[in-house]
Amino acid sequence: MNKYDVKISNRLKRTEGQLKGILKMIADEKECKDVVTQLSAVRSSIDRVMGLIVAENLVDCVKTDMSTGISSEESIQQAIDLLVKSR
Amino acid sequence: MNKYDVKISNRLKRTEGQLKGILKMIADEKECKDVVTQLSAVRSSIDRVMGLIVAENLVDCVKTDMSTGISSEESIQQAIDLLVKSR
Amino acid sequence: MNKYDVKISNRLKRTEGQLKGILKMIADEKECKDVVTQLSAVRSSIDRVMGLIVAENLVDCVKTDMSTGISSEESIQQAIDLLVKSR
Amino acid sequence: MNKYDVKISNRLKRTEGQLKGILKMIADEKECKDVVTQLSAVRSSIDRVMGLIVAENLVDCVKTDMSTGISSEESIQQAIDLLVKSR
Repeated sequence: MNKYDVKISNRLKRTEGQLKGILKMIADEKECKDVVTQLSAVRSSIDRVMGLIVAENLVDCVKTDMSTGISSEESIQQAIDLLVKSR
Repeated sequence: MNKYDVKISNRLKRTEGQLKGILKMIADEKECKDVVTQLSAVRSSIDRVMGLIVAENLVDCVKTDMSTGISSEESIQQAIDLLVKSR
Repeated sequence: MNKYDVKISNRLKRTEGQLKGILKMIADEKECKDVVTQLSAVRSSIDRVMGLIVAENLVDCVKTDMSTGISSEESIQQAIDLLVKSR
Repeated sequence: MNKYDVKISNRLKRTEGQLKGILKMIADEKECKDVVTQLSAVRSSIDRVMGLIVAENLVDCVKTDMSTGISSEESIQQAIDLLVKSR
């Protein structure tokens, strides 16, 4: 189980709202460059959330590893792999 | 005004559904790697929609330019710039 | 065979130079945020070159298709697919 | 000063070689889809190196923070910001 910071879900709820707005722009046949600008903003927001999740996950792994004394380079390596793969 | 293929809005509606699913996974404190996998799928979907929009826009510019005979390298260049910037 | 604008190879030669610079920074154990900033610039440059190539390719396909009168939606669709996949 | 794993410079040297190969493909006017495929590989390699650097940097910050006892949430936050921004 993973605990997620409330910032993460708040940001995703805003992203959901942005997507609704984009669907309206498309229905209203708005200019393609304006639609693309909004989609870029949504993509960056998703990317940022991904970055925050994988970073917090890596910090947790290292802290757990050091505080419990059970050396688990493996869990740290898995967190690093997830981070790199998610880019 | 730009006309958008119905495929584009259908795909964005599916993406909206995916986002709702991710918010539920976060509320349920699901594994971080599963949440990240879902977010990657959403990002790819957004990226694909952006690619389709800028590509169709470029094709329209070139076709309009050639069929109307009014040489407008400028509109084609703008469409190329939008495409490159949107990456 | 594809003809490439000289801008493309000039830009890639500059990118090669940037990479050499980064390798030197790493050898000199420079600050990680400075190395990451340089790598970001290289990645953007590569992305831009890719965007220019797939855009020019799409324009050529549409122009060839319209000027030769041989309707080949297929070659245009292939160029669009390449563009979307390359993102 | 930052120490970098030798894997990082080895990977960047290979990337440099790939770039040389792409420049040759362009001079030889090779098919655009083949050039784009190679550029995609270079971009992924750069992305991966960036991911490894920011991840190792974050791990070092957390380990230093915990072993020295000097709580420095700030350095960890800076490493997280670098990671998110570099995406």
